[in-house]
Amino acid sequence: MSQISGFSKFSKDQKIEWLVENFLDSRPQAAKTLRQYWNRDEKLQKLHDEFAENTVSNYYLPFGVAPNFIINDKEFAIPMAIEESSVVAAASKAAKFWGTRGGFKAEVLGMTKVGQVHFNFSGSPEKLKRFFEEKKTVLLNSCADLSKKMKQRGGGILDMELRDKTDELPNYFQLHLTFNTADAMGANFINSCLEQIGSTFEKEAAGYSGFNETERNVEIILCILSNYVPECLVRAKVECPVDELQSTPEISRAYAEKFVRAIHIANVEPYRAVTHNKGIMNGIDSVVLATGNDFRAVEAAAHAYASRDGKYQSLSKAEVKNGHFYFWMDIPLSLGTVGGLTSLHPLVKLALDLLQRPSAEELMKITAVAGLAQNFGAVGSLVTTGIQKGHMKMHLMNILNQYNATEKERKLVIEYFKENVVSHQAVVTKLENIRDGKY
Amino acid sequence: MSQISGFSKFSKDQKIEWLVENFLDSRPQAAKTLRQYWNRDEKLQKLHDEFAENTVSNYYLPFGVAPNFIINDKEFAIPMAIEESSVVAAASKAAKFWGTRGGFKAEVLGMTKVGQVHFNFSGSPEKLKRFFEEKKTVLLNSCADLSKKMKQRGGGILDMELRDKTDELPNYFQLHLTFNTADAMGANFINSCLEQIGSTFEKEAAGYSGFNETERNVEIILCILSNYVPECLVRAKVECPVDELQSTPEISRAYAEKFVRAIHIANVEPYRAVTHNKGIMNGIDSVVLATGNDFRAVEAAAHAYASRDGKYQSLSKAEVKNGHFYFWMDIPLSLGTVGGLTSLHPLVKLALDLLQRPSAEELMKITAVAGLAQNFGAVGSLVTTGIQKGHMKMHLMNILNQYNATEKERKLVIEYFKENVVSHQAVVTKLENIRDGKY
Repeated sequence: MSQISGFSKFSKDQKIEWLVENFLDSRPQAAKTLRQYWNRDEKLQKLHDEFAENTVSNYYLPFGVAPNFIINDKEFAIPMAIEESSVVAAASKAAKFWGTRGGFKAEVLGMTKVGQVHFNFSGSPEKLKRFFEEKKTVLLNSCADLSKKMKQRGGGILDMELRDKTDELPNYFQLHLTFNTADAMGANFINSCLEQIGSTFEKEAAGYSGFNETERNVEIILCILSNYVPECLVRAKVECPVDELQSTPEISRAYAEKFVRAIHIANVEPYRAVTHNKGIMNGIDSVVLATGNDFRAVEAAAHAYASRDGKYQSLSKAEVKNGHFYFWMDIPLSLGTVGGLTSLHPLVKLALDLLQRPSAEELMKITAVAGLAQNFGAVGSLVTTGIQKGHMKMHLMNILNQYNATEKERKLVIEYFKENVVSHQAVVTKLENIRDGKY
Repeated sequence: MSQISGFSKFSKDQKIEWLVENFLDSRPQAAKTLRQYWNRDEKLQKLHDEFAENTVSNYYLPFGVAPNFIINDKEFAIPMAIEESSVVAAASKAAKFWGTRGGFKAEVLGMTKVGQVHFNFSGSPEKLKRFFEEKKTVLLNSCADLSKKMKQRGGGILDMELRDKTDELPNYFQLHLTFNTADAMGANFINSCLEQIGSTFEKEAAGYSGFNETERNVEIILCILSNYVPECLVRAKVECPVDELQSTPEISRAYAEKFVRAIHIANVEPYRAVTHNKGIMNGIDSVVLATGNDFRAVEAAAHAYASRDGKYQSLSKAEVKNGHFYFWMDIPLSLGTVGGLTSLHPLVKLALDLLQRPSAEELMKITAVAGLAQNFGAVGSLVTTGIQKGHMKMHLMNILNQYNATEKERKLVIEYFKENVVSHQAVVTKLENIRDGKY
């Protein structure tokens, strides 16, 4: 086998043929598996093929809905794309629970995004500062064309600072810019502005009479937005009288105490905090995916934010005060409801329709609430029945599918595990017993 | 509109009907959009419906392939499921580049996973310690049945420690367990063991004669695996003589210097590090998704690992030494090639076949390499042409689709933007000019 040239130029059929021949033992079934996921509508399939490169099929994520969310007194059915079982169920359950206790509240604390021009400068920092102050308007104006449309939508460049980072790395300086990108996630806009400013900066420096020859030779290393957005922040919260949390005041108080303790543990123990926040992200990413946003960007921002005080901590907080239970979370979320996939992917459009065509701020609130709901469900399970009971019941279906259980076998197995502990092995044993006539 | 009860029990058609009526202005097109993504094979569709709850459709992620990867002298075509443009193209390009320079090397540095039983204990820590030592075997043995299958596959519980965390939180102790879960991701196994040990621990403590009444009343708060796996670690790396990096030794050296500088910047500046690592995760998550693994778990572990020294840093490192360019990354990756979706999802099975049925360790290597390749491509673009040039060209197709460009219009627009800077506005203007006959 040798390196393949021009693979990207192959037709989809040629790509599949090459893969099957070289890596899939020439099995016709392999090609069939890839093709069975193609959409029957050729035009629609072509659209999806062009979202990325070298596409040969569609990877299905279950597209589910969690109904009954009350957010700031408005009802929502939240679309969630997620392959993990229990996530949508837990979100739905938490939605219903809080629906009868005042619902979720959410507010956007900031919409500021960040981008930086990283550069090398050898010379006098004072002269650089003077140059920057003199040229600031020229630099910003060089983005006028790029910013035109964004300004019409209420966004644009907010500010630009020169930052001296030479205590971290010799000769390292930054232009640190802040942006408002309105309803767009804004990556393309921010990056285009930064590259323009970087190039103008280099040019202006090269001709600046106040610099000596070395100083004129500014070297731009890279120009790029930051996915770290601690000021593009949203808060989601719930509260209710402690005594109304569970069936009786006594059970409620014990539950609240254990719940708050679990949150405190996630605050002090990074091994727990990582998993705790992972659960939050189950909810967040499901909505991020369904609405055509970029979950890698959101993940990176959230976890970096969780480590901002030098120790990785829980994103959510809880307390009991004056007989009230409070549970809340601040999370950075840079989301868009225009641009990107939002107007291209029919199911993304539908997801946004389902959410009543939210602005970016509204989508931030809805998404944060989905994360908090998820966390409420997970922590609640963990401090009461344990996570496995619910999870393994959900997982039962998958095991039954794996072993091609008949409808009759399914019924018998499900009935049996209402009383017995689910484990992969236990299910297989039970299924084998049924098949051997022992039940 | 009122809260809906029993939504999860609705048939898929009933769910859609309810959504369309209540949130989608009763538009028949909305139902059609959801249904057009259903697979025509009913049984296959049912399988996918049952992976999660309240499913009404399939969310398509483009399933692409990056060929030409050489990893430890073996050739791979890597399956990647990702909605972002440029990711597969950048991985393929990096694969080809390093394919002629010795390929990628990867090694697994550890396979240890972690789970914890978090509990409250009021009393003498010395007595607790004695109790733990006496009961350690009983606790571990309580998992014998659960561990049977895992032991046959070479895994199981590795060790269990009692940890006193009372300096962090009053009365807070842990059982800290380490696991090897062989080729499984192992979440169900670990959680089942932990819940069993937690319950045995509570029972044994309640009857322990060495404890006073308060001490007997151990309270288990929660039992759960940790997604933080700093000892389930894999290293991916590349190296070559500096002078062979680009077309001439001079260009090569300048490139290497700028590349290494960009990595140093990502090490000292968290705003940059977050985006830098986000790029790595573009590659990682694509493979994690295509192989049926849990990207939220992998994301949480990676970013927490990036912040382990108290400051959020770059996951990848680079240096030039003795005329050689070195670029590498250590990343925690807890992946499975058995269990979960791996044997259930036909496209996941195919992805694993494409990778020659890898063990978990092999999949860790392949995935880490995809992340490093991605990072190499991104940093390389950033320090040379900038990220926007390549990215916007890729994005051009999407804009053309959005405006339903004809084949003729596409050709004219693509030709034009070979010489001109792509921006959303510029493309729209050009397209409008063409449509107005001005070209």
